[in-house]
Amino acid sequence: MAMKKLSQAELDAAAERSKAQGRATLKLIKETAKDLKDKIDHRKAPMMRFPVRSLQNVSYGTKKGYFEIGKGIKSRTLSVATVKGFAQTVRMMALSKELIETNDFATKRDAYYQSKNWEEAHFDEQAESDTVMDDIEAMFSMRDVSREQLRFIPDEHGGAVAGSLVVLDPDLETGRVERIDCTRFGSGAYSVPSSVEHLSFETDAKFILAIETQGMFQRLQSHKYWQTANCILVSMGGVPTRAVRRFMRRLADDKKLPVYAFVDGDPYGIGNIYRTLKVGSGNAAHISRFFCVPQTRFLGITPDDIEDYELPTHPLKDVDVKRAEDALRNDPFFKAHPRWGEAISKLVRMGVRAEQQALAKHGLNYVWERYLPEKLAHPEKFLP
Amino acid sequence: MAMKKLSQAELDAAAERSKAQGRATLKLIKETAKDLKDKIDHRKAPMMRFPVRSLQNVSYGTKKGYFEIGKGIKSRTLSVATVKGFAQTVRMMALSKELIETNDFATKRDAYYQSKNWEEAHFDEQAESDTVMDDIEAMFSMRDVSREQLRFIPDEHGGAVAGSLVVLDPDLETGRVERIDCTRFGSGAYSVPSSVEHLSFETDAKFILAIETQGMFQRLQSHKYWQTANCILVSMGGVPTRAVRRFMRRLADDKKLPVYAFVDGDPYGIGNIYRTLKVGSGNAAHISRFFCVPQTRFLGITPDDIEDYELPTHPLKDVDVKRAEDALRNDPFFKAHPRWGEAISKLVRMGVRAEQQALAKHGLNYVWERYLPEKLAHPEKFLP
Repeated sequence: MAMKKLSQAELDAAAERSKAQGRATLKLIKETAKDLKDKIDHRKAPMMRFPVRSLQNVSYGTKKGYFEIGKGIKSRTLSVATVKGFAQTVRMMALSKELIETNDFATKRDAYYQSKNWEEAHFDEQAESDTVMDDIEAMFSMRDVSREQLRFIPDEHGGAVAGSLVVLDPDLETGRVERIDCTRFGSGAYSVPSSVEHLSFETDAKFILAIETQGMFQRLQSHKYWQTANCILVSMGGVPTRAVRRFMRRLADDKKLPVYAFVDGDPYGIGNIYRTLKVGSGNAAHISRFFCVPQTRFLGITPDDIEDYELPTHPLKDVDVKRAEDALRNDPFFKAHPRWGEAISKLVRMGVRAEQQALAKHGLNYVWERYLPEKLAHPEKFLP
Repeated sequence: MAMKKLSQAELDAAAERSKAQGRATLKLIKETAKDLKDKIDHRKAPMMRFPVRSLQNVSYGTKKGYFEIGKGIKSRTLSVATVKGFAQTVRMMALSKELIETNDFATKRDAYYQSKNWEEAHFDEQAESDTVMDDIEAMFSMRDVSREQLRFIPDEHGGAVAGSLVVLDPDLETGRVERIDCTRFGSGAYSVPSSVEHLSFETDAKFILAIETQGMFQRLQSHKYWQTANCILVSMGGVPTRAVRRFMRRLADDKKLPVYAFVDGDPYGIGNIYRTLKVGSGNAAHISRFFCVPQTRFLGITPDDIEDYELPTHPLKDVDVKRAEDALRNDPFFKAHPRWGEAISKLVRMGVRAEQQALAKHGLNYVWERYLPEKLAHPEKFLP
């Protein structure tokens, strides 16, 4: 496969970008800490500011393409009642600083156990340290710094990837860049690391296909559909983890690729998996700018597909109908797109849902021999 | 890394083994079907036989090393009441035959939707087709054939793998063997496919380290611990899926490697994750022979570790104590190993549990700089 290789200058630029990001984050941490210390030195009450995290403080515009946190701010002032939480927040920021300086990382659990050495500032329960980490994430998100940039990584797998893609991954200690060719994994795949900030990409693929189930991913991978369609396959395994969302976002931004979500035609696939992937969720809108993939469009299964391909269906359950009606009435994303309003209303009228594997009715490989090529001939028809 | 490469003869033998397995499975399916037809042709009532699947029909011997299904058999005779289930079972066997002949595979969901073309024999609910597939699996397990050999694959990811290992994976269509070098994934990893029957291995690793959490796997992988310790790292993500268990089993058998399970020191890590990995579970004992990894020993966290390493703990919940007491009283595996009886009793007396990331109290990398080397110096002390 003739894939455009990154030049040494581009590789160096990518490595430099990663280092510059670390320096910028360090600078922000130091500024924040210095501001607190200055206030204390001048006998003023120091204060930390966080965005308000609720649906009331969220907006959606089709231009940005994802849920955006609003201007609502809450602040916490140092007092006798808040002194322990204050100290813990500062100590957690110091841990982040240390992680960046040593080029290491920590999960939420790691951070909780590290705190056992913080004497009076230690956490008694992980729920407490998780809250402090969430606060720090929210605080720094206002300055365009993600939790992963603070070197706090999720304790989740990152999904599986295969296809026309080379991932460039500099070693933590030596800096030597590993070239990972995702066309060379046989029936297996590339498992995305918990944090992807340090990766660069080479690809000549035309799009990213984000697949709901592992079974469907395995079918397309084993039959090398990525070669036929010149694309990159990503297995989400239900609602995608932070790492796999961030991976797709960075790849799609970097290589100007559209993302097509191939999920079940039901209120969960549409309202949870697809919506979360594309625009984020209400209570986590402060991190949408990092994790949403607004380039995503909906490839399938649509209510029209259920009719056109005569798919076997399941009746909608009460919880499905409730989810659908809630999306139509309250969700800023679906309310902004009349075509989605029509599609969801149609699904509710039909009273049924269809899984992506329902295409197997026409033969196990009908999905990539007929369905996907027919749909991909008209991406302009994809639901937004 | 100087790793012994498989010779062409060995590669050919591996490919031939895979084909021979397919032929043997086809033969068994045809025999089973012919037996049914002969009975019908001679106007006798045909009958299918399945092992009884319950704890009462399970035995554990330390020699075999896993839960074995007993001799209890139930049979189902064709009658007016059973005719539909009978027809569906035969039709599902025909699907398996077709999958082997076309070198393809199907998930449970695929099989359910395929049945929509079986006219009178179609399934109305996936639960029905799942039951028929489970029956066929049980029936063929008595003849040493696994569900994966029947080409029914799980709809689950297969876990992440990194380290001193080359996986050899012949292409479904061309037969060309892909060599996948698991030392070359950077901070990412090799994602195991849903079915692993067709894989071969090259390795000079000394052991397989099976890790409970993705966060711990990421730490050991990013710091290239597999290089330091010359081992293969496997991320289980809780109770390991069928594919990852089968992967470790085949690798451990083939390369005569011990498997060390690095899990939390709590009744769940011991009684569910470790026990299931090593010896299987009661209601699935008919498949233990394929999926258990009896070579596994328990590397951590033990009740002694909690004391020796002064680990932070959580109090045992009622459900933990109940799980532990149940294991001591009823579980054939723990009852066969007095050392386990002592360890679990000690944990209950201490009234606490400790997670593997509790080692982070001593520093984030203490786990691979101190804990693992100290433990690995004395594998003979590992709990059985």
